[in-house]
Amino acid sequence: MENREQLYIIKIGGNIIDDEHRLNAFLKSLSVLAGKKILVHGGGKLATKMAADLNIPQQMVDGRRITDAETLKVITMVYAGYINKNIVAQLQCNGTNAIGLTGADGNLIMAHKRTSSSIDYGYVGDVDMVNDIMIHDMLSRGLTLVIAPVTHDGRGQLLNTNADTIARSVATSLAQRYAVTLIYSFEKPGVLLDVEDENSVIPRLNPSLYAKYREEQKIFAGMIPKIDNAFAAISAGVQNVIIGKAEELDKLTSGCGGTSITHE
Amino acid sequence: MENREQLYIIKIGGNIIDDEHRLNAFLKSLSVLAGKKILVHGGGKLATKMAADLNIPQQMVDGRRITDAETLKVITMVYAGYINKNIVAQLQCNGTNAIGLTGADGNLIMAHKRTSSSIDYGYVGDVDMVNDIMIHDMLSRGLTLVIAPVTHDGRGQLLNTNADTIARSVATSLAQRYAVTLIYSFEKPGVLLDVEDENSVIPRLNPSLYAKYREEQKIFAGMIPKIDNAFAAISAGVQNVIIGKAEELDKLTSGCGGTSITHE
Repeated sequence: MENREQLYIIKIGGNIIDDEHRLNAFLKSLSVLAGKKILVHGGGKLATKMAADLNIPQQMVDGRRITDAETLKVITMVYAGYINKNIVAQLQCNGTNAIGLTGADGNLIMAHKRTSSSIDYGYVGDVDMVNDIMIHDMLSRGLTLVIAPVTHDGRGQLLNTNADTIARSVATSLAQRYAVTLIYSFEKPGVLLDVEDENSVIPRLNPSLYAKYREEQKIFAGMIPKIDNAFAAISAGVQNVIIGKAEELDKLTSGCGGTSITHE
Repeated sequence: MENREQLYIIKIGGNIIDDEHRLNAFLKSLSVLAGKKILVHGGGKLATKMAADLNIPQQMVDGRRITDAETLKVITMVYAGYINKNIVAQLQCNGTNAIGLTGADGNLIMAHKRTSSSIDYGYVGDVDMVNDIMIHDMLSRGLTLVIAPVTHDGRGQLLNTNADTIARSVATSLAQRYAVTLIYSFEKPGVLLDVEDENSVIPRLNPSLYAKYREEQKIFAGMIPKIDNAFAAISAGVQNVIIGKAEELDKLTSGCGGTSITHE
């Protein structure tokens, strides 16, 4: 096991995507990180702003955005076009040979349209398959993959797909071949015991602690799907899973910061 | 020379990009075409419409659009995002393993910002370098490349770049390695002697005929840069260059339609 090569899979999300200077600083720290890397990015608030500018009404059900055809168009433009290509150009500037991809490109990630008895989420995809051979092949050629949260169903339909889930799916698909470190990075320094206190980072989170904090309602809302993805990754053989601040990437990769998700 | 493998490089432009049904019919004919293929697409009228919807004024000088920062953003969203990814998803549906790329991805096409003593074209790029090794590598892995007309300068700046020029630059960069057939496809059946008469296709166009028709003003306006690119490709070792109708791709590739550009 020990001679598997290290692979970093880093999800970047939160407000940092919308802030060019902070994003570029993060991309510099990504470029200096040695070894094989995959970046999965969310979309920040730009898609919401673009939809508003284009007078496309945003329908929310239970706090989730419904992806109708016009919203999917905006997401494809903003995530797969504007954000993805600007990240790639910036990484190229840093000397990192990046390639920007959606799930449709090279049939990288196949998904199916989510069906629910109660809610029609629209063009939202749940991941079925990650093309780990294609990813391994590109990594072997020295490329850094930059993945936008858009997949396809193999029948010509693009699908809006949660970036945390994409990061987890890609990480688990490569967990046999590589010693994968999966990092969920955002604007907070880790999972906080008190959301108001940035010094309350939980250094290690195992299933029993997680259950306890959920019961005590110390961990709630938006953090839950992220942590669920993190535990699913660890259970599926991903070596390290860390949640922490994008601007402290060096600390997260060296094990000196963030919240480590552990089996026990 | 004869044992070089055949490579088709097809530029698709004109109104067909804006018409989903015609575009999908074209993509089907591309998928059934055997052998290695690269598709270079323009942007159609969607970028202009999107800029209007977003109230971004379009500045034109001498019939050319000036690409200011906001217009570049629209172009990146529409060309590299919406159009590119929908083409890729459709090709995947046809069983063609397509990958959508800009010049920034894998450092595929490097360009510099156009400088002119008289006009500031904005973020418009002229091609300096095509990464033929990366392209050859991807083609060898069975991928069909779908290239959007956006390049980068290696310093973090994306640049709007003419799709006809990209097709020519890619074709010439691969002319040693492959027997390249470069096809400029659009809504007309070829170069017409009379723009009003679709039956007036010039079957073969050599430099002296071209000079004659230009002098007689039978060939003019938008066709000139396209034909100039076509002659530049032939001069640089591209085996066949054909201009013709996108919906007659099988005729163009079998030499039974369109206008062939020839040395003599």
